[in-house]
Amino acid sequence: MALIVYAHPHPTRSRANRALLAAVRDLEGVEVRSLYDLYPDFDIDVAAEQAALLAHDLIVWQHPLYWYSVPGMLKHWFDKVLARGFAYGGGAQELAGKRCLWVSTSGGDEEAFSERGFHEHPFSAFVAPVAQTARFCKMHWLEPIAVHGAHSMSDGALTEHAERYRDRLVELTRERSEEDA
Amino acid sequence: MALIVYAHPHPTRSRANRALLAAVRDLEGVEVRSLYDLYPDFDIDVAAEQAALLAHDLIVWQHPLYWYSVPGMLKHWFDKVLARGFAYGGGAQELAGKRCLWVSTSGGDEEAFSERGFHEHPFSAFVAPVAQTARFCKMHWLEPIAVHGAHSMSDGALTEHAERYRDRLVELTRERSEEDA
Repeated sequence: MALIVYAHPHPTRSRANRALLAAVRDLEGVEVRSLYDLYPDFDIDVAAEQAALLAHDLIVWQHPLYWYSVPGMLKHWFDKVLARGFAYGGGAQELAGKRCLWVSTSGGDEEAFSERGFHEHPFSAFVAPVAQTARFCKMHWLEPIAVHGAHSMSDGALTEHAERYRDRLVELTRERSEEDA
Repeated sequence: MALIVYAHPHPTRSRANRALLAAVRDLEGVEVRSLYDLYPDFDIDVAAEQAALLAHDLIVWQHPLYWYSVPGMLKHWFDKVLARGFAYGGGAQELAGKRCLWVSTSGGDEEAFSERGFHEHPFSAFVAPVAQTARFCKMHWLEPIAVHGAHSMSDGALTEHAERYRDRLVELTRERSEEDA
């Protein structure tokens, strides 16, 4: 079902990402690959990552937003794993038709992501590079989940986000099962 | 004068980036740091990188465009080097007032970067995350140099781009010297 490619440099220290991950990692058919745990030297096992992609229909990229983008490790994963001859090029499109869900957390609240806010842009201004990466690989880009204000969020609000994330994954699995039926 | 933070995983194999770099690396006051050469295990020396930033007024990020963004190594450099307490946060703004020039090369030609093209967006759609990274650090964001069609470009056209890059750096140095005068 779902492969969660998880990129947090301190996997156990992130309150928000940990809570989100805890809500979904026990769902049936979910595989989590924690990149910073797996590859402390950034020496990504490309074949293993590609095999994991092939085994799942829904690809989730989950991480804290760093500098308006994915963390360095996940960007390196894009560079290495979404390779020519696998994801694109020469007729290759091993990821075509898979769905891609981007799940990010950020410290800044909703207001910070606006023209007059701290980040001078709405969050949507930062989506294109990641979305187009998925689309170039012929994946279906799903509406992203962006959890803002992660640092200051109450436990209750965080739990709600985590439950919505879980519901979303369950719903996405059901949709595809129905399509296959 | 200028610090060129250079991020190419195969520094000697890139025809376009090599030509661009060759045109500017001998200019007086230019320091080049080739990240993939310096840090094969991605183990970035943060103190050394920060010291290099402090020693220069013009910061250049030069690299091939990978997945509509900087290569994984340079993103990792953003994550580690542009740290809270150095680049921002708690009153820190060591990079404030420096100028930032983004220089990227890509295989796709101009037409590929359009709504109907291969990449479904103009190049400008991918600028925000990188530009806002610089701006958040209070750097002056300069008009980027984007060399498209690098794979198929003639030697003559590539030389022209390289010369324009060189002229631009010379001009940027002169401007600042005049301001300081």
